[in-house]
Amino acid sequence: MAQIWKRLVADKRRRQLESIPKDWLIQVPDEHIVDVTAVPERCGLLSDRELQITNTGDVNEILDKLAKGEWSAVEVTNAFCKRAIIAHQLVNCLTEIFVEKALARAAELDDYLKTTGKTIGPLHGLPVSLKDQFSIKGLEATMGYASYVGRFAQQDAALVEILHECGAIPYVKTNLPQTLLWVETHNLLFGRTVNPINRKLTSGGSSGGECALIALRGSPLGVGTDLGGSIRIPSAYNGLYGFKPSSYRLPHQGCVTSLDGLDSMLSAVGPISHSLSGIKTFLKAVIGREPWLKDPQVVPKKWDEDEYALIRHGGGKRLCFAIMWNDGVVRPHTPIVRALKMVKGALAAAGHVGRYVVVVDWQPYKHAEFGDIMNGIWRAGSGAELKAATEATGEPLLSSLGLEEQPPGKAFFATGEGISAYDLWQLQKAKTQLRKEYLDHWQNTVSVTGTGRPVDAIIGPASASAATPHGMNRYTNYTRVWNALDYVAAVFPVTKVDPVDQSYYAKHMSGMSGFLCIECAAKTFLCADDPDTFLGAPVGLQIVGRTLEEEAVLRMMEIVDGVLKNATGSRL
Amino acid sequence: MAQIWKRLVADKRRRQLESIPKDWLIQVPDEHIVDVTAVPERCGLLSDRELQITNTGDVNEILDKLAKGEWSAVEVTNAFCKRAIIAHQLVNCLTEIFVEKALARAAELDDYLKTTGKTIGPLHGLPVSLKDQFSIKGLEATMGYASYVGRFAQQDAALVEILHECGAIPYVKTNLPQTLLWVETHNLLFGRTVNPINRKLTSGGSSGGECALIALRGSPLGVGTDLGGSIRIPSAYNGLYGFKPSSYRLPHQGCVTSLDGLDSMLSAVGPISHSLSGIKTFLKAVIGREPWLKDPQVVPKKWDEDEYALIRHGGGKRLCFAIMWNDGVVRPHTPIVRALKMVKGALAAAGHVGRYVVVVDWQPYKHAEFGDIMNGIWRAGSGAELKAATEATGEPLLSSLGLEEQPPGKAFFATGEGISAYDLWQLQKAKTQLRKEYLDHWQNTVSVTGTGRPVDAIIGPASASAATPHGMNRYTNYTRVWNALDYVAAVFPVTKVDPVDQSYYAKHMSGMSGFLCIECAAKTFLCADDPDTFLGAPVGLQIVGRTLEEEAVLRMMEIVDGVLKNATGSRL
Repeated sequence: MAQIWKRLVADKRRRQLESIPKDWLIQVPDEHIVDVTAVPERCGLLSDRELQITNTGDVNEILDKLAKGEWSAVEVTNAFCKRAIIAHQLVNCLTEIFVEKALARAAELDDYLKTTGKTIGPLHGLPVSLKDQFSIKGLEATMGYASYVGRFAQQDAALVEILHECGAIPYVKTNLPQTLLWVETHNLLFGRTVNPINRKLTSGGSSGGECALIALRGSPLGVGTDLGGSIRIPSAYNGLYGFKPSSYRLPHQGCVTSLDGLDSMLSAVGPISHSLSGIKTFLKAVIGREPWLKDPQVVPKKWDEDEYALIRHGGGKRLCFAIMWNDGVVRPHTPIVRALKMVKGALAAAGHVGRYVVVVDWQPYKHAEFGDIMNGIWRAGSGAELKAATEATGEPLLSSLGLEEQPPGKAFFATGEGISAYDLWQLQKAKTQLRKEYLDHWQNTVSVTGTGRPVDAIIGPASASAATPHGMNRYTNYTRVWNALDYVAAVFPVTKVDPVDQSYYAKHMSGMSGFLCIECAAKTFLCADDPDTFLGAPVGLQIVGRTLEEEAVLRMMEIVDGVLKNATGSRL
Repeated sequence: MAQIWKRLVADKRRRQLESIPKDWLIQVPDEHIVDVTAVPERCGLLSDRELQITNTGDVNEILDKLAKGEWSAVEVTNAFCKRAIIAHQLVNCLTEIFVEKALARAAELDDYLKTTGKTIGPLHGLPVSLKDQFSIKGLEATMGYASYVGRFAQQDAALVEILHECGAIPYVKTNLPQTLLWVETHNLLFGRTVNPINRKLTSGGSSGGECALIALRGSPLGVGTDLGGSIRIPSAYNGLYGFKPSSYRLPHQGCVTSLDGLDSMLSAVGPISHSLSGIKTFLKAVIGREPWLKDPQVVPKKWDEDEYALIRHGGGKRLCFAIMWNDGVVRPHTPIVRALKMVKGALAAAGHVGRYVVVVDWQPYKHAEFGDIMNGIWRAGSGAELKAATEATGEPLLSSLGLEEQPPGKAFFATGEGISAYDLWQLQKAKTQLRKEYLDHWQNTVSVTGTGRPVDAIIGPASASAATPHGMNRYTNYTRVWNALDYVAAVFPVTKVDPVDQSYYAKHMSGMSGFLCIECAAKTFLCADDPDTFLGAPVGLQIVGRTLEEEAVLRMMEIVDGVLKNATGSRL
């Protein structure tokens, strides 16, 4: 029986390799070369035009050239397919690869444009990568389980249908961790995805394949899911924009997932990109297709230009942002604090460019309690689920995502027997109570903003640190609390870990008692071998607004991003 | 220990009696007089003006007179308090009675109007009754449990806060069944609420106190909750309009409830009234106060006039209604079928009055499966919950709401040990899958409507029969399926059981094999002693639209109601 899962792995890996065109194989750099970000440009496989296409940072520019016929859908798709496969060889980011299917659709779209003079939809010809969970008819959605090899989807997921209608072209699916419940990316079926800036660091997770791919510009825009930070953490670790809507805004129907049936805390679907314009275009396009007519859990709420114009936020004339310096539990490391100071400084100076902004400090409220409740809710049935997912083939559950040999013991979220439905209800009741308290806490900030409104958005860390070495990324409450609250939360790139930050290591060492909690955080930082561990790693921050305020949070992120770019020049 | 709960009952009943002004006690008719609807007008306690006020069928007319100062808030409140207490003596519909508190607030509102010339909000001076679950600071919310006596609320529920801000005046709370999970109204603390048209019949439940009170015009408008039909069934049984929004449109925060923490299927809060205009005014007023700023589970969706104008339904110019004659499980009895025919006929003839309507038949889809899944989800933890709610005082759980001595055995929804969280997730996953299938089923009706759209709304039974004798109301799938789907569903009065319907009994007897299922339904109908059992009982029907389409469903109900009134004259 122990062999069943291994045979499935061998079969799947063979088929994956066969799906890669042979002449797209490259010479992969030696292991000691940790930064592989320059390889796609230097490997010689991409033509100047393919580099021009794939290096285009603005999704709207790609769409514009496609719509005008300056670039054909076939050449754009081919360029991204090629670069994706280069990226895959460098960081192991892909699961399903379907170049032929994608090029066939691209040819259809080119024909359509040629024949009618019109685009087929708002994403006409745009290659879009998808986290492995999204079902595509005829392909597997293994979610990294050897045990799921051979389960070919009978139907497209709702989002895939919508992307098709919009003219987008799915062409690869991307890697994720076993169980989805880690914030790194490693499983026994496809192996580990690493961070392109430094392969010794994690790409983050669970949408880590997606983010590593996009970081290498193997995709202009991808779609992830986020149950506790799975879009935002890898986006931050790879210098990207990552947008987590409230749970029920974008369609999740047809995703293979973990904790399936846990309706009280659904995984949110959202876009990831180098391109902020791409995030907006994607959200408007998908919502514009009325996803609630395909997924019964989606809230029937059209894209609202009034909300994008910040009508509920004083028309955006005088916004109040609250900086959350830490969550009252784990203090973030120096580069994160520096990023927060950069944003605060840029916002405070924004008046000089005619935008009036108030900045206050955010008081975190019971973040540790939210974490405890989420652990309780996830663990209520995760053990039984993961057992059911793997037992038949003897596939082991990972107890760590570190590089070391797996120690004996239970998997991270598969411990224990679970609890009764009644006990789960008590946890969910407590969660609702905490949400009510947090809502009141937020409303009460009206007394400190001076704008006549409560705080408009919170800006805080996306993680306590930049990307950690493998197996070290343990503390997720900087993102997870906002899932528990079902708030809209998005990540934007701010800076990179710089030599100026190197003092963080000493500071952390001497200031350990300054941490408010910390078993897991201590491990994270102390396990970093030397002060250079994080050097060059991207630092992103998170902006948080309230439930189903996608339009407003996007607009506020654009404002903060613009103010920051204005203050720092092109900062990345 | 067995005495604890009995002492609590005695204490609470004594205090309830003390809360009734002594000069409002009436001579209650003998038991053999079953119809008590005329008593409030004949008992001599209400002045002509009080009768004029309380008989005013249109809530907007009451509000208008209050706003103009033609009626003072104090006199309106006093009139409804008095009539509510008369009603209570006839049908046992109240739990908390707080006349003084209400009159004090009414006096404040009168002062406000006198001083400022303005109303304080859109419900200025309107007495509003509330189902017992809504917490009001300083009062108990026992939910019919002796065990909860003495739990005085520390805070107002979110809805109560909003009603206060709108100028509404809560003055009584109303009765409900033990556990909430029955569709009749009886508990060991307050006893049984009966139907005013025939005290041998149930008022329905669980918002049965509310509906019996409103039927006797002891309240112009009340608020109930609906987890499986608890607004709609008693509204139908009492000839009222009852509106069940989707779960998260109106605030539920601060309600004492059953299955608390079962976030996957929340009880929906909604209004009940004789007055259709009152339903609209209430919904607009409450949503207008942005309830999502008080209850974190409420969807932030403003009242949408475009949706009320049926913009998503072709501007309402050519609507397609689908008649659901039965649910594929239990065939409704003759008066319900006659009501459906009346509506179909009126709609078909509506072209004559310039409104073009298409009527098709609705094909129910897996309604029995929905019922099974809901049973499974409710029972997952209800046993443990009900035990926790009652055990400390020795309070028994009812195994029937019939008049007979309680047989030994388990309570209706308290059987079994419950299931694990993981098994609950599997049921919830199956529910989501069924919702997706139902969504596709509905979308596919575009091929039969001829309007270019799928069916706009379904019109069907609210229950398989009119109000049953006590203990006989068992089959709830005509309402419960729409909770599982989280569709908007509302009830409107159509007719009454008439001598012309008496053949239904024989038909049912001879046609039993015509029932598609039936253990429970057979019991219901066969237990009716004679053909006159239902005579005079109101018959309501249900209109069903999709998730969070409150504005559109309300408008379509107004249209159907108008067409029907036009066809039949004032029909009740």
